[in-house]
Amino acid sequence: MKFLHTSDWHLGRQFHNVSLLDDQKAILEQIIEYLASSPVDALVIAGDIYDRSVPPTAAIELMNQFVRRVCGELAVPIILIPGNHDGAERLGFGSEQMKNAGLHILSNFSDMLTPVELDTDVGKVRFYGMPYNDPELVRHHFKQPVATHDEAHQLLCRTIVETFESDAKNVLLCHCFVDGAIESESERPLSIGGSDRVSHEHFTPFDYVALGHLHQPQKKGEDYIRYSGSLMKYSFSEQHQKKGMTLVEMDEAGFHTATHIDLIAPHEMRIIEGELDEIIAQGKTDPKSHDYLLVRLMDKHAILNPMEKLRAVYPNVLHLEKPGMLIGVEQQMSAAKLARSEVDMFRDFFCEAQDSELSDAQEKAITDIVKQLSEQ
Amino acid sequence: MKFLHTSDWHLGRQFHNVSLLDDQKAILEQIIEYLASSPVDALVIAGDIYDRSVPPTAAIELMNQFVRRVCGELAVPIILIPGNHDGAERLGFGSEQMKNAGLHILSNFSDMLTPVELDTDVGKVRFYGMPYNDPELVRHHFKQPVATHDEAHQLLCRTIVETFESDAKNVLLCHCFVDGAIESESERPLSIGGSDRVSHEHFTPFDYVALGHLHQPQKKGEDYIRYSGSLMKYSFSEQHQKKGMTLVEMDEAGFHTATHIDLIAPHEMRIIEGELDEIIAQGKTDPKSHDYLLVRLMDKHAILNPMEKLRAVYPNVLHLEKPGMLIGVEQQMSAAKLARSEVDMFRDFFCEAQDSELSDAQEKAITDIVKQLSEQ
Repeated sequence: MKFLHTSDWHLGRQFHNVSLLDDQKAILEQIIEYLASSPVDALVIAGDIYDRSVPPTAAIELMNQFVRRVCGELAVPIILIPGNHDGAERLGFGSEQMKNAGLHILSNFSDMLTPVELDTDVGKVRFYGMPYNDPELVRHHFKQPVATHDEAHQLLCRTIVETFESDAKNVLLCHCFVDGAIESESERPLSIGGSDRVSHEHFTPFDYVALGHLHQPQKKGEDYIRYSGSLMKYSFSEQHQKKGMTLVEMDEAGFHTATHIDLIAPHEMRIIEGELDEIIAQGKTDPKSHDYLLVRLMDKHAILNPMEKLRAVYPNVLHLEKPGMLIGVEQQMSAAKLARSEVDMFRDFFCEAQDSELSDAQEKAITDIVKQLSEQ
Repeated sequence: MKFLHTSDWHLGRQFHNVSLLDDQKAILEQIIEYLASSPVDALVIAGDIYDRSVPPTAAIELMNQFVRRVCGELAVPIILIPGNHDGAERLGFGSEQMKNAGLHILSNFSDMLTPVELDTDVGKVRFYGMPYNDPELVRHHFKQPVATHDEAHQLLCRTIVETFESDAKNVLLCHCFVDGAIESESERPLSIGGSDRVSHEHFTPFDYVALGHLHQPQKKGEDYIRYSGSLMKYSFSEQHQKKGMTLVEMDEAGFHTATHIDLIAPHEMRIIEGELDEIIAQGKTDPKSHDYLLVRLMDKHAILNPMEKLRAVYPNVLHLEKPGMLIGVEQQMSAAKLARSEVDMFRDFFCEAQDSELSDAQEKAITDIVKQLSEQ
């Protein structure tokens, strides 16, 4: 028995004003190819299908095509829960009508207690989906004194465990922040000040826990309590994370193995550091020059139109930092010493604009002008 | 063979800042009761399910509950098309997955040519859904020189008719403005200047045409080309329209009868005309004092806080007009004669506020003050 665990698709996300929809489409294509060549019993999405509760129409269409091909053509059931970015009621429309066609959207507490049951070669496997919820919702629905995310998840897990059947294996889909797990910059906090943390211990009664919310693939506490990580990188801080999905294998005893399957984005998201000239030189032969880039220019002098120059070789530079132009604290230089004079700035500008140095006469002329102006 | 034809639900609509969702819910309840006691082969909604392309969550939930009860509990198939108020792609999510559960959302040209086929006691009946579309969309999709709504519908009807099968009866769902039909104030124009009109003659090859868009129930051209009208009144101009649904009966020969079935809104929408005192007196014993009202005050003098006074007996006065305070053109009186002086206005105000007339001394005092002020 095998299934694929994914999460945090964020379909429709923009990154520095660039739509990632084409990249997301290419990655979904990889998932479809995988499913076509390596059949599994189910595909699981642990929340944040879309990037916001009212997603753009194009994102809905992309998801619709994916569902048609996976549930329809490949006959692989999809089981999903809304995350904190999704609108649960909006996503849940028609879920009752879709489930017989293999699309299982578990979007409320009633769905949570009605697991999707699959008959597999290792017997009955039940998938419980705990839609994303904050403590307030849980307190209100269950009329229990629940104040924190941790207490909410404890209560919800206990409520689910009461419905376990002795002959079935149990998988949980859950969108939350497990205490001690590693954050990335692209997650939207669930609450302020760390009160969103949930102990992994509530999850130990399950055979496998398919987590969503954190964008880095990781396990927490037990081998069978895992984040698959997001579909692709959604911040430069994730440049070294390997994105993909988790192939989970179960045997008669329950959880067997979890294997990371790479998903490769058409554009990598990475950070390049160096001086302008060396970056441009390297860009001319860089086979991955279309990647989404954050460039950190280390040059110490002012540069005219650096973005334009960089984009001539790296068209998708999305963000530019100039730490070389800032006063380095570690350098312990006095501000006075570092401050660049008007003449220095003009010299940099001239050099950039004319591609040649100021002659002595020119330097004298500009110095005189600056002097006159400052004395006025 | 019978089916119910409805249209223009506009779930989530606001009327003069009042949400109509509770009224809509009560009316949907009447549809469910009807279906439970008088089984039909299908329920048809000819567009404008929601009031806008991104409907409020509560409207989606209401629709979801309705679908669950009708398709699920009562096992009556629902066949619907998006109207000009709906977002076709948004509404169409998961339609592939829903159809086997009896919810048929026909939201694009491919769906249009894939009719919903029902086996009934009079043989095969095929329901074609033509989602709302403007000429630009049709021109683009079919690569045909289509400039007007009329040409677009002619092309679409011809395209559908080519797929007819000789042994089936054909029903069309269509959201458009049939030439010569009667408008109401609550429809959003499809285009400016009458170019949105479509000839009913394109529709004659069908056995029945379930139209949506116009809010008044009516037939156009043939007995079998009909608007069911909207779910409820959405403007005061519709106060005398009987809202409801159309029960269509087919026999071996095709269309048999169309019968209007009333749907009763909890709050009527009506206009009351008269002087304030008589309206208030009547309101005290009016059994339908909670209706949504437009009040036309015919009083000729200024009135203090008329809305407050009216709402003491008619809590849902939503709009107030004061034609009695306007200059009647037909009266042919000179503006000078009609203009009310400051003293006249004060006299009205005093009378309203104190519930007594000005004494002669008081009238003299105010006249003197006004005179002094006007001479300053």
